Amino acid sequence: MKKFYYTPGPSELYFTVEQHLREAVQNGIGSIHHRSDTFHEIYDRAVKNLRLLFGFGDEYEVLFLSSASEIMERIIQNTVQEKSAHLVNGAFSERFYNFSEKLGKEAIRVDSEWGSFPNIPDDIQNSELIALTLNETSTGVSAPIEKINQLRSLYPDTLIAVDVVSSAPYDQLDFEKTDMVFLSVQKGFGLPPGLGVLLINKHARKKAEEMHSINPHIPGFHSFPVLIKNAIKRETTETPNTLAIYLLSKVTEDMLTKGLEQIRREINYKAAVLYQAMEEAPLLSPFVQDKNLRSKTVIVGVTDHSEKILDAFDKKGILLGKGYGKFKNSHIRISNFPTHSKEQVEQIADLLVELK
Amino acid sequence: MKKFYYTPGPSELYFTVEQHLREAVQNGIGSIHHRSDTFHEIYDRAVKNLRLLFGFGDEYEVLFLSSASEIMERIIQNTVQEKSAHLVNGAFSERFYNFSEKLGKEAIRVDSEWGSFPNIPDDIQNSELIALTLNETSTGVSAPIEKINQLRSLYPDTLIAVDVVSSAPYDQLDFEKTDMVFLSVQKGFGLPPGLGVLLINKHARKKAEEMHSINPHIPGFHSFPVLIKNAIKRETTETPNTLAIYLLSKVTEDMLTKGLEQIRREINYKAAVLYQAMEEAPLLSPFVQDKNLRSKTVIVGVTDHSEKILDAFDKKGILLGKGYGKFKNSHIRISNFPTHSKEQVEQIADLLVELK
Repeated sequence: MKKFYYTPGPSELYFTVEQHLREAVQNGIGSIHHRSDTFHEIYDRAVKNLRLLFGFGDEYEVLFLSSASEIMERIIQNTVQEKSAHLVNGAFSERFYNFSEKLGKEAIRVDSEWGSFPNIPDDIQNSELIALTLNETSTGVSAPIEKINQLRSLYPDTLIAVDVVSSAPYDQLDFEKTDMVFLSVQKGFGLPPGLGVLLINKHARKKAEEMHSINPHIPGFHSFPVLIKNAIKRETTETPNTLAIYLLSKVTEDMLTKGLEQIRREINYKAAVLYQAMEEAPLLSPFVQDKNLRSKTVIVGVTDHSEKILDAFDKKGILLGKGYGKFKNSHIRISNFPTHSKEQVEQIADLLVELK
Repeated sequence: MKKFYYTPGPSELYFTVEQHLREAVQNGIGSIHHRSDTFHEIYDRAVKNLRLLFGFGDEYEVLFLSSASEIMERIIQNTVQEKSAHLVNGAFSERFYNFSEKLGKEAIRVDSEWGSFPNIPDDIQNSELIALTLNETSTGVSAPIEKINQLRSLYPDTLIAVDVVSSAPYDQLDFEKTDMVFLSVQKGFGLPPGLGVLLINKHARKKAEEMHSINPHIPGFHSFPVLIKNAIKRETTETPNTLAIYLLSKVTEDMLTKGLEQIRREINYKAAVLYQAMEEAPLLSPFVQDKNLRSKTVIVGVTDHSEKILDAFDKKGILLGKGYGKFKNSHIRISNFPTHSKEQVEQIADLLVELK
């Protein structure tokens, strides 16, 4: 029986991936060199499609790394000399904070209870970077875009890094209010894992160059100046996950053909159906209390019956996500990504309401 | 027209990859979590097959990183406090040296002309690590295994790291004479790129642990203690390139079924055919003069007619490799990996001899 993945990443592959992968192998994409013209074209197409999809301008360059976790570490290494601040409301925002601490920086954490979003602090002027997680995959909290705008107003000269790992391409960011935005491809884009994508603007690049001129011993392999020098040529530093970059260029094209507005409308509809079902369901209820903070792409319910729910869905060939970390046995997480169909989400909603 | 890749990596996919990839997608391998039982089994199968194929024991752990370049940087970060020594005879051994220098270590280089292999030095007692490239992809020089044994006799307590990127699984190493051995999958294993594999023994692990206890700020994302802690559970630190790990587990299985001895015999035969053709060819001759140093897996010719040769083969749907770096226009590189067929290699040899 075919299984359908509603886990919050890796998740169900975008419905066109199988076909693209077949064509990739037939056309030798797994064998091309990362300094060949064919590779340059693939990289360039991925960049152009991401630009159109997200709406960022030429001031941003697109870098390919191996995962969002790696990107967090590289952001700290390349843009934080002494001090970073982190809005922490879940496991992934905490991970970013941990990277900074581990690398010996003065890492400030602005906490809020998991399931909420921190108030924007007015006392972190000395930080060189402010990091926030737009969509906390661990709790299903989505920060309103206004929070980023508020940060930018208060700290016009501080770098702002935004983790959009599990919301992209849903959220519509104002890229003038951010400096670095990153994601991995195994969530909303529905690709097999193994590729992180970092969008980085001129301010962040300038900071990285300054840091490297002060300290020549910052690790060089995935240093931002080297990655950017290569990215301008539409190349990567090392032989990369070429297949994933190819698939990203293809899936973004499919999404542009469908239209982001249509994708967003469908996600909004499916999210409404799932939250409504969780309100009515006997065995679970929405974890995030503040409706304005409820993620549209990772929908989290709190329950005393997680095993029963997971099993009931598993029998129907549908894999829901367990809770994350400390919520492992008390939460159910359901991803609502572009590839998930309205019809199947409606079935999931019905079963949630029926389960006793 | 289908193109056949004889480039020295990425190269032609192993002939079973297309089928494995199709099954992977159908079985949801692109969607599984890296802490799931299915992932544990895939990781474990890859480890077991690599053990059987290479013949290393339980004292080695198998780590998955994103590329051989990343592995070089991580080896320096994790096992070299102050001083490393590098036998440098081409672009990739030089790259390893460069990583050490970039990270602020005292990096000693023991050079020999490109196309040869350095004499084993007797004066690098103070180095914590000795690095060598068993098969220099940039020049087609393969170091005799005795060189490693000689190093081990002279320096019984120094860590020895061996780059087998473009020779694996051909070479038969004595794993008691090495401490770290690494490769990437887009060469002899014939996989799409995006995965580096590090075999690491207890001595190297102990050194890494000591270094982390002295300096807690060594980057933690792909630190060896963290990678090893996860590897023991058959997990990776981040969501990895799952498809590549899966394909590695499958292709190593296919290679075990065929038998490494048979694969080695075929590679020996094909190498003999190609070198013989280069000796006879009007337009090129073998670059490596010392026959004992000639690589069996990356066969390099020197020529004044590289464009003419590449074009003639391209017209037949066969892609040979250009020279590397400074040899870009004066060398031709031909990979001779397990997937390359005897019949096609014989055709290549014939055409080399005919071309005027």
